[in-house]
Amino acid sequence: MTAKNKTADVTFENLLRIFTIPEGPDSTLTRIEAELSRNLNLFLGEHIVAEEKPLIDIEKDFASAHIPEQAQFVSEHTEHLLDTLVAHSVHTSAPSFVGHMTSALPYFLMPLSKIMIALNQNLVKIETSKAFTPLERQVLGMIHHLIYGEEDAFYARWMHSAAHSLGAFCSGGTIANITALWVARNNALRATADFGGVEKEGLFKALKYYGYEGLAIVVSERGHYSLKKAADVLGIGQDGLVSVATDEHNRIEPQALEKTLKDLKAQRILPFAVVGVAGTTETGNIDPLKAMATICRHHHCHFHVDAAWGGATLMSQQHRYLLDGIELADSVTIDAHKQLYIPMGAGMVLFKDPSAMQSIEHHAQYILRQGSKDLGSHTLEGSRSGMAMLVYSSLHIISRAGYGMLIDQSIAKARYFADLINATDDFELVSEPELCLLTYRYIPAVALKALELATPEQQLALNNAINELTKFIQKHQRETGRSFVSRTQLTPARWRHLKTIVFRVVLANPLTTNTILQGILQEQREIARLAPQLMTNIENIAYSIVPVPAPKVTQE
Amino acid sequence: MTAKNKTADVTFENLLRIFTIPEGPDSTLTRIEAELSRNLNLFLGEHIVAEEKPLIDIEKDFASAHIPEQAQFVSEHTEHLLDTLVAHSVHTSAPSFVGHMTSALPYFLMPLSKIMIALNQNLVKIETSKAFTPLERQVLGMIHHLIYGEEDAFYARWMHSAAHSLGAFCSGGTIANITALWVARNNALRATADFGGVEKEGLFKALKYYGYEGLAIVVSERGHYSLKKAADVLGIGQDGLVSVATDEHNRIEPQALEKTLKDLKAQRILPFAVVGVAGTTETGNIDPLKAMATICRHHHCHFHVDAAWGGATLMSQQHRYLLDGIELADSVTIDAHKQLYIPMGAGMVLFKDPSAMQSIEHHAQYILRQGSKDLGSHTLEGSRSGMAMLVYSSLHIISRAGYGMLIDQSIAKARYFADLINATDDFELVSEPELCLLTYRYIPAVALKALELATPEQQLALNNAINELTKFIQKHQRETGRSFVSRTQLTPARWRHLKTIVFRVVLANPLTTNTILQGILQEQREIARLAPQLMTNIENIAYSIVPVPAPKVTQE
Repeated sequence: MTAKNKTADVTFENLLRIFTIPEGPDSTLTRIEAELSRNLNLFLGEHIVAEEKPLIDIEKDFASAHIPEQAQFVSEHTEHLLDTLVAHSVHTSAPSFVGHMTSALPYFLMPLSKIMIALNQNLVKIETSKAFTPLERQVLGMIHHLIYGEEDAFYARWMHSAAHSLGAFCSGGTIANITALWVARNNALRATADFGGVEKEGLFKALKYYGYEGLAIVVSERGHYSLKKAADVLGIGQDGLVSVATDEHNRIEPQALEKTLKDLKAQRILPFAVVGVAGTTETGNIDPLKAMATICRHHHCHFHVDAAWGGATLMSQQHRYLLDGIELADSVTIDAHKQLYIPMGAGMVLFKDPSAMQSIEHHAQYILRQGSKDLGSHTLEGSRSGMAMLVYSSLHIISRAGYGMLIDQSIAKARYFADLINATDDFELVSEPELCLLTYRYIPAVALKALELATPEQQLALNNAINELTKFIQKHQRETGRSFVSRTQLTPARWRHLKTIVFRVVLANPLTTNTILQGILQEQREIARLAPQLMTNIENIAYSIVPVPAPKVTQE
Repeated sequence: MTAKNKTADVTFENLLRIFTIPEGPDSTLTRIEAELSRNLNLFLGEHIVAEEKPLIDIEKDFASAHIPEQAQFVSEHTEHLLDTLVAHSVHTSAPSFVGHMTSALPYFLMPLSKIMIALNQNLVKIETSKAFTPLERQVLGMIHHLIYGEEDAFYARWMHSAAHSLGAFCSGGTIANITALWVARNNALRATADFGGVEKEGLFKALKYYGYEGLAIVVSERGHYSLKKAADVLGIGQDGLVSVATDEHNRIEPQALEKTLKDLKAQRILPFAVVGVAGTTETGNIDPLKAMATICRHHHCHFHVDAAWGGATLMSQQHRYLLDGIELADSVTIDAHKQLYIPMGAGMVLFKDPSAMQSIEHHAQYILRQGSKDLGSHTLEGSRSGMAMLVYSSLHIISRAGYGMLIDQSIAKARYFADLINATDDFELVSEPELCLLTYRYIPAVALKALELATPEQQLALNNAINELTKFIQKHQRETGRSFVSRTQLTPARWRHLKTIVFRVVLANPLTTNTILQGILQEQREIARLAPQLMTNIENIAYSIVPVPAPKVTQE
């Protein structure tokens, strides 16, 4: 069916109709919506991760750069979307899609999202958001309280204060991290009697005035790539993102951090911010936040914690101890679209000190006037949607206790999967789960043994051969469409820090069952057999290392 | 009804149910959704702009900083939202809400938004977005074509190219402007044989290497406040945002621009970017883009056009000439959530050169690998929603011709309103509409005459008195809730650049009728009478200037 056959007449009457609320339950739009919901529910109920169609073929449906001259009927267009877009999008909510930080969403968010779309508030200012402004401030207050647990009097005083801000709601963790480091940079190079501050005079003059040769943001080598972007955009330069070695659990080494800060200062480079990671993107590990906080206080660095992923762990009474020390951070990033199960586009940054954001405050005549409660005077973004509403609703409908339970079961599931992997003789668990993330790979038993016995040269060759197999399995599994794990590269201490490709799984979807996890391993074993050359290559190297009578390298 | 009376049991079974697709049309959620839609339609159909309830009272409903321990039923929570949030949000889509850049939305976006929310794709990478990635690239291609009108072969070559990018989709115009200036900054201070580029080494070293004393972004005095934010965040400093005088139509003076660039260079300050405004936020005027482009080419400046508001004018065959020269810009910002009638959160920046964004390219191991088509390697934001889908749908359902018609009627409506104001003897049109924005104020006839005859001192006093009245009327009109105009401060040449408070209207809502506009003026006249002291004050000053027998200052 070519959706473009029928076209609608473009008249001003028809256009007005488009903007008018449809009447009654029998309107065409109501019927289209019901049909669409049915289709979406079918899609969401499918147990596959994606229809296999090469991207190059999909691109053919999105090839023209011309805005259509002819108007399409909504019904035709909806069918067109279902055929070309929905059918070839990714089942991010499928229980077997465990490769990235997406999950099934609470279904009640579908109807409630309508409020956000229909009211179309603009949170940049009170005049276009009214009650949404105090709502967003309350959500920020609740998350601030989750992290810092200040007294009620603190929130009564600051949560709705025009000149203060407990944080900022933003489109995601990247903007949240940039905002935190922007605030930290401006507070580090603030105005004095004879200097206007970096926000006014810029970095060049600020560094000359303060007598520094450069600025640095310090983070473990497992920090998120958004920090590199932040260093670039803020004018510090990517080289100013200084990384510190981690231990075998991907956690920053406090002594190495201390040394890095001293070394930087000795070069007249100001390490104005240290970033602790609470849930590394690749392995889900948490830096020793308390120790970092102590070091930061001693060196007068802004201590930011990137808890985009792990912050929700604070909801669990059983596991929140994992983030001990986060309450000492000057600022914290949390993504609600990760483990708070909100649709894409809901990040937050919180500041311990309600005055911290004054260093980036800005005003304009027609909005954001001095003294107004407009949220836009403390955000990097301008116009923003009422996304905070969905966080508000989920906090009420799921509750703290419910979120705690979700976190606990995610971590338990990761533990189960780790044990399952350890119980096999052909999979290697590469990183232990601390939260609900883990990494592993498929290695035939003989190859694992050989890796242990190998010389450094042999180890490198064998590990590279295994890397090829890991890549093949991950790619093939994604393409068959039954399940999806992602892959990344680590440098495990166990293998002398060799570049090691691993499967990465994130077990946050409450609908992912143990049976599905068993199935994923079984499928990976079967896929390995589809690459006889890669397998033979591994076995050849392995059998050249382990003393086994006669290598069985023949293939059929 | 206190919504908190009933609470749901927090058990893992109940939590699983939350994540499960409801079955059949009789499910509780389906009923809630139908009820909610009915309520939202009622709200959208109301002809008021806001229920009057002081913010301080609304804040009482959003006072606790504690995440609820008890789970709320969805039905209870929905009622709670309708009472406390929806009822006290702003009718941004009301035909009499003409104060900001919000409008009624095409109603078909309500059902279609479900696709975006339900599929919850993450556009940062192909693995979590698949068909949404080529779709977004196509939308960027279509808008690029709208601006630059390159040949089909150009788009066939670049639109889906992994290593190139025609632009970036982002949450709004602010991020779009920051992205454009980030790219411009990095291209101006690029790597050489013995310098790593500003993106690596940072601004301090870059300026030393290139021998500059500072950087500047040059824009007219009517530039958007987001540019100040950009100058701050990019490390240039707000003082580096250099503003140029405008003519009596709020357009930059090319000669003044030329002079500014020369002066900056003489001080060894590099004006790396010039921003043309295509639709100033306050008055909707458009800079002489062609003349600016010529100057920029001569001075080797990146020429960015902030067409967040006015860009959609390119859809109109009748009016696109107003933006002549935009095709010479190196980059352009357009907000789809303004005159493309998309819900909040849809900004775009387009680049003439498909290689321009390589200066901000970034990669990461587990995503955004080299050679991938992942959109995230060229965006300031990380995780992003599939918002581009709503632009795609609107371009198909409304069509180029339909958008053209919408633009034409908005501009015609502004002309009508300007004529209406000019035909009265008690309103002054302060800025003529070029697009669908205009500013005006209420001045009793005698005061207008007096302003013309006054000495400078008298003029200042009288103008200040009128300013007080304008503020009163705007505030009061907003509070009565029947209509809403915003206000800002201009410095009109007619009144020797005195600070002048004006009403600002934006006439983009297709449902705003001429009758509504007549009603707004009538309402403002009536409100003026509610401030006898302010009126008396104005009349006293006026009658002290104009030679009238006996001033009638008595009130009753």
